[in-house]
Amino acid sequence: MKKVVLAYSGGLDTTFCAIHLSKEKGYEVHAVLVNTGGFEEEELQQIGARAEKLGVASFKVLDVTKTYYEEVIRFLIFGNVLKNQTYPLSVSAERILQAKALAEYAKSIGANCVAHGSTGAGNDQVRFDMIFQTILSDVEIITPIRDLKLSREAEISFLKQHGVSMNFEKAAYSINKGIWGTSVGGKETLSSDQSLPEEAYPTQVSKTKPEVLSIGFEKGEITQVNGQQFNHPVEAILKIQEIAGPFGIGRDIHVGDTIIGIKGRVGFEAAAPMIIIKAHQLLEKHTLTKWQSYWKNQVAEFYGNHLHEGHYLDPVMRNLEAFMTSTQSYVTGEVKVQLHPYRFSMIGIKSPHDLMSSKFGSYGEMNKGYTAEDVKGFTKIFGNQTAIFHQVNKNTAHGEEN
Amino acid sequence: MKKVVLAYSGGLDTTFCAIHLSKEKGYEVHAVLVNTGGFEEEELQQIGARAEKLGVASFKVLDVTKTYYEEVIRFLIFGNVLKNQTYPLSVSAERILQAKALAEYAKSIGANCVAHGSTGAGNDQVRFDMIFQTILSDVEIITPIRDLKLSREAEISFLKQHGVSMNFEKAAYSINKGIWGTSVGGKETLSSDQSLPEEAYPTQVSKTKPEVLSIGFEKGEITQVNGQQFNHPVEAILKIQEIAGPFGIGRDIHVGDTIIGIKGRVGFEAAAPMIIIKAHQLLEKHTLTKWQSYWKNQVAEFYGNHLHEGHYLDPVMRNLEAFMTSTQSYVTGEVKVQLHPYRFSMIGIKSPHDLMSSKFGSYGEMNKGYTAEDVKGFTKIFGNQTAIFHQVNKNTAHGEEN
Amino acid sequence: MKKVVLAYSGGLDTTFCAIHLSKEKGYEVHAVLVNTGGFEEEELQQIGARAEKLGVASFKVLDVTKTYYEEVIRFLIFGNVLKNQTYPLSVSAERILQAKALAEYAKSIGANCVAHGSTGAGNDQVRFDMIFQTILSDVEIITPIRDLKLSREAEISFLKQHGVSMNFEKAAYSINKGIWGTSVGGKETLSSDQSLPEEAYPTQVSKTKPEVLSIGFEKGEITQVNGQQFNHPVEAILKIQEIAGPFGIGRDIHVGDTIIGIKGRVGFEAAAPMIIIKAHQLLEKHTLTKWQSYWKNQVAEFYGNHLHEGHYLDPVMRNLEAFMTSTQSYVTGEVKVQLHPYRFSMIGIKSPHDLMSSKFGSYGEMNKGYTAEDVKGFTKIFGNQTAIFHQVNKNTAHGEEN
Amino acid sequence: MKKVVLAYSGGLDTTFCAIHLSKEKGYEVHAVLVNTGGFEEEELQQIGARAEKLGVASFKVLDVTKTYYEEVIRFLIFGNVLKNQTYPLSVSAERILQAKALAEYAKSIGANCVAHGSTGAGNDQVRFDMIFQTILSDVEIITPIRDLKLSREAEISFLKQHGVSMNFEKAAYSINKGIWGTSVGGKETLSSDQSLPEEAYPTQVSKTKPEVLSIGFEKGEITQVNGQQFNHPVEAILKIQEIAGPFGIGRDIHVGDTIIGIKGRVGFEAAAPMIIIKAHQLLEKHTLTKWQSYWKNQVAEFYGNHLHEGHYLDPVMRNLEAFMTSTQSYVTGEVKVQLHPYRFSMIGIKSPHDLMSSKFGSYGEMNKGYTAEDVKGFTKIFGNQTAIFHQVNKNTAHGEEN
Repeated sequence: MKKVVLAYSGGLDTTFCAIHLSKEKGYEVHAVLVNTGGFEEEELQQIGARAEKLGVASFKVLDVTKTYYEEVIRFLIFGNVLKNQTYPLSVSAERILQAKALAEYAKSIGANCVAHGSTGAGNDQVRFDMIFQTILSDVEIITPIRDLKLSREAEISFLKQHGVSMNFEKAAYSINKGIWGTSVGGKETLSSDQSLPEEAYPTQVSKTKPEVLSIGFEKGEITQVNGQQFNHPVEAILKIQEIAGPFGIGRDIHVGDTIIGIKGRVGFEAAAPMIIIKAHQLLEKHTLTKWQSYWKNQVAEFYGNHLHEGHYLDPVMRNLEAFMTSTQSYVTGEVKVQLHPYRFSMIGIKSPHDLMSSKFGSYGEMNKGYTAEDVKGFTKIFGNQTAIFHQVNKNTAHGEEN
Repeated sequence: MKKVVLAYSGGLDTTFCAIHLSKEKGYEVHAVLVNTGGFEEEELQQIGARAEKLGVASFKVLDVTKTYYEEVIRFLIFGNVLKNQTYPLSVSAERILQAKALAEYAKSIGANCVAHGSTGAGNDQVRFDMIFQTILSDVEIITPIRDLKLSREAEISFLKQHGVSMNFEKAAYSINKGIWGTSVGGKETLSSDQSLPEEAYPTQVSKTKPEVLSIGFEKGEITQVNGQQFNHPVEAILKIQEIAGPFGIGRDIHVGDTIIGIKGRVGFEAAAPMIIIKAHQLLEKHTLTKWQSYWKNQVAEFYGNHLHEGHYLDPVMRNLEAFMTSTQSYVTGEVKVQLHPYRFSMIGIKSPHDLMSSKFGSYGEMNKGYTAEDVKGFTKIFGNQTAIFHQVNKNTAHGEEN
Repeated sequence: MKKVVLAYSGGLDTTFCAIHLSKEKGYEVHAVLVNTGGFEEEELQQIGARAEKLGVASFKVLDVTKTYYEEVIRFLIFGNVLKNQTYPLSVSAERILQAKALAEYAKSIGANCVAHGSTGAGNDQVRFDMIFQTILSDVEIITPIRDLKLSREAEISFLKQHGVSMNFEKAAYSINKGIWGTSVGGKETLSSDQSLPEEAYPTQVSKTKPEVLSIGFEKGEITQVNGQQFNHPVEAILKIQEIAGPFGIGRDIHVGDTIIGIKGRVGFEAAAPMIIIKAHQLLEKHTLTKWQSYWKNQVAEFYGNHLHEGHYLDPVMRNLEAFMTSTQSYVTGEVKVQLHPYRFSMIGIKSPHDLMSSKFGSYGEMNKGYTAEDVKGFTKIFGNQTAIFHQVNKNTAHGEEN
Repeated sequence: MKKVVLAYSGGLDTTFCAIHLSKEKGYEVHAVLVNTGGFEEEELQQIGARAEKLGVASFKVLDVTKTYYEEVIRFLIFGNVLKNQTYPLSVSAERILQAKALAEYAKSIGANCVAHGSTGAGNDQVRFDMIFQTILSDVEIITPIRDLKLSREAEISFLKQHGVSMNFEKAAYSINKGIWGTSVGGKETLSSDQSLPEEAYPTQVSKTKPEVLSIGFEKGEITQVNGQQFNHPVEAILKIQEIAGPFGIGRDIHVGDTIIGIKGRVGFEAAAPMIIIKAHQLLEKHTLTKWQSYWKNQVAEFYGNHLHEGHYLDPVMRNLEAFMTSTQSYVTGEVKVQLHPYRFSMIGIKSPHDLMSSKFGSYGEMNKGYTAEDVKGFTKIFGNQTAIFHQVNKNTAHGEEN
């Protein structure tokens, strides 16, 4: 009897897969839910209870939230990664880690196959397949939903036949929740010209009075929130979400290139990720040199895109992570953020590594480290090549000389 | 008698320069105010009237707002340039154009010298000097404030001796206004940990009711605002500022690397620039391919930095402008923006060049242009090299296989 | 009767396709040979004579050598493109243009299908398919060799059955010749550790006495060779090949990433391309500013890779071409090259746009444009941020201070 | 009495400095020669003997060749750094390490000043000053040659007055030798259009019979030469130079941008560096993924330029080194090189990490890892966005559709 590890979430598609694979195809199905911070304990117990009635050989929850932080989120913060200057990669990053955890689990139990419930229409199928084909080179990948091309109605009817009782009503908005943000899809995101209404977002805006939030970083990682020390950054992220979420902060719509070449649009709300990235970035502006910032930006753009496209296991990702980690040596300090309903702004930072120390001169004030003569000489040489270029080409260049 | 063209703004420093150069040094002083959209007509007349009493040979206003748009702002929009992901380069860009206009004017009247009132402490001295030494290779650059290192008190006393009556009181916040934004400096921006208070910003927030703003672009340039056609983008920018300014939108503090190596911090408010850049960027997300976006981002980061540092006349800037212009061929369409007090959000776009056309499949829905089998094949090849890498190095790579 | 345009070269595979499609499948076959400079007139007549016996409806030669130059080679020169620092993209670039010419021809005659003889094992299938699916979105792509997976023996037996007489012997080395170089594949290139023997290369080395070659460029394009003016760069390239080819110059083995993820290795000889690129690059070193060179290098690496992978029609390519064209405004002058058997070296350049003009100082000699004091001031500011960084972090940074 | 550490080479300029500082200025002069592999033992003894007669308080040789390798050369190999695609940075890299060693020595003996003999005309002054001002923030930098602007004749006359007897004749070619190459300057390199004659190069070409050279790398570092194991890469580099030098390999002229904005030209011969870089690069072509190569190239271009310009202590350099080191994990194997007089070519490589393993398919042969259908699906998706772009914009884009 062939062992299959099934990526299981308890939703319509993976419930279908569980029954289809065990009862119709005769597999020994090991349903695995990989939690990256989006499921509550109670919810997990309900899902587990239901799973066991579907004929699966086992149901297991892998909580990889901390691994997710250590292997992915950490670098998204180091790189201030916002895809297309907007999206913290909430879903993309999560899928990668889920696929990796599933693959490792499949290997550990000696599974012959691995299955996921992705359709043939999105990014997730590519992400799952790419991780699986790399880590599990001899293991078959099974994708019933993609292959059978069933309609929602056909799936529901199949489930009812098999005695499954769950809420079959389609939600107006499809929600995917994880520690690095919640995505929101709906009819508006299928168009180019409409925004999501207030009710599409799962968080209810309940705070209206501005608050100051303080975040402490050590070498680019969060260690403190409002003066409270945390043992693991994941706990700090949850704390920031708890404080900032009720302000309705971090909502936007991401538009971008899917892996399969079409454009896609998805709403999200991600209070903690957006605040953390902006706070971290501000601290970097004070502690990194100009060329450190430049290269971090060049590299992070690619890192985010490559991750988004499922190339997490390309060794270049480890190399870029080594670069990013190296840049964080002095990104230590405290950042103060002002929270308002629907928005936040930066107050400022304090850091022993702040390069803006007034010891070296204040911008716009006369500086202590050099003289006016120094700057004159500097400017002469700094612009020397451009001046030579225009001298050499003065009869032809750009019309400004003639 | 030596002719000097003096960059003149009517403030304390340039008033000092006008008297010092004409009366003490015996130059024929041609005071030139280069308006890049920050001065009102009435203000200019007052400044002119006062200038003529200072002993200058001539006073002239050069209105270069449209040239400023055509030679600089246009490319800042094409490149969605926000220095350090924050600052629309309000002052940096303006200085470049002012220096260039002054240099061309100096050349046209055969001036022997050119003078500016910059101190030895900031970026502007470098920008002025670099443009001057390039365009005016045989012309002497005179910088009395930088060279004499006078205190504010000494300057005031000098002006009083020469019978100048003006408001000598130092403002709590120094303001620099132009069409691409207003900068705000104060005691808070000299520290790392304080934000600017509401009263530091010149605009009073008078609008509280949300509005929808519509901006029409053609090949990356603004042609319409709320359905009204404009002959020149400068007029459209002014219109957007008029509509959005009273919401207090586009305020932030920029922290970054000055040309002279220290970190600097400056507040700004720039409603129109921030909205225009974000709207333009959204339209690009729908109309550019993935690699067009990638390269525009890589290039624009450098373009903005290089401009900021005064390297506008480096021919690489013309080359990057050619690139950016070329990317705009299909950046045509309408963008709707929701304005709120202190913030704005994107509603969506309409464009005949929208690559998100549902003709080619909708994200997350089953696509018309390809099959599930195609995606499986795609994924196999797309991840082929990474899979090979891990096969070849399976006993050593990254610990995930063993 | 369905019309098919067949990419035809007269070799085993495309001869098979011609018969298979016309006689077995009943298509109206239009066999088209796209010449990119690799076929002689006489050879073309022989191929044409043979083609007409295969049952095709028409045989046509499209000479696109000049278009090839104008739409591709020109930019490979502007960008000094050598894939992996080695390979002038001889075959990759050619395929793109061939596919494009075929697609345009198919459109012009209203063909329903387009066919090519690529196997399922290489890059060419991807290049052909990608160009075809873009330009001919409603046209079917037929690939008999790839689909039927016939062995060489089976193909030969089929051809013999259909009365085709041609040389069926397999050459020890497969050669592909075009104006931008000749590729050479053999058993050695299937391994990682062997080089090609002398006899693998089609050119016999017949020149042993060193010669000086002079190449004249205007805005990056070749206009003169050894003082002789040419009307079209293609003629100049042929002249350079005629002069340099017999030295056995420009031989090497390219190792790199194929589009399908495996590594590939191919020998080539490309005297003219290698000399032209190095000569052009030297002229640029004298006429471009530092940042022009920097960005050309960054961009050209990508441009070459993207072309190699068949993405020629991605609009980003047009944008990068606009950038590269813009950089060539002053790349005008004469380059002298010393030719030796198997190698060449640069002698030097003459250009009215040479930025190394001694008017502005000679390197290592005392300069006229600035003083020692200027350089001291320059250095102080140029290194200011790094000095501040080490001051701020002196107890922790890098161990050199303590 | 003020202590000064003098960068001393025994040449005209630094001999002048030694006497001038000790006898005329009354400093306690500590003459320090930093050997980066260019000085023989005997030569050092002669220089030492002569130094002691000049009135210096001490003379010391710091042999930093291994440190030079570990802190700089290693990364030039990892990055395959050739400035402007030509120059292994022989002198630039050396100066940085010399300055760093001098600064650390000055700190260790509590010197008040540090002196070097650079003129005001070249790159070296900037490199020395920038390292000194960063590491020795409170120490005065003294540059007698730059400040006094003495002619060669005046220096000689001064030395004769002080009883110094040395060879005062000016060599036709100025030579600077170090382990990473020998630079050669002469009257030809002051022009743009002349190459160096044979006699300008210090190495006499004495080998004419081709040889095969084998180099073993482990994680990017040389461990073996022709089967012989070496304890330190420096010894392996010397061995390669010993074998390849007599072929006259690695000669060329570098043209590029000096730090001070003018163009400079310098000849060099660097057999070992050129062979090592090309061999290392070939090994990388077989062992790195496509995007690892891409990013290494992007980054190394900057790393080389930034080092060349003296920014070695900018922390971004440490970050880029971390990236480069990370890429070397699998750059292990043997490279065979064919040596000829004046040239060399690559034979091939053997590596356990070779991604070209025929297990995964051979290029041009039918592959085992995927089917023709897979590639068809791949291509459809891979080119999907470009096809959509042309569909959407078909009436306007690029003229190929109409």
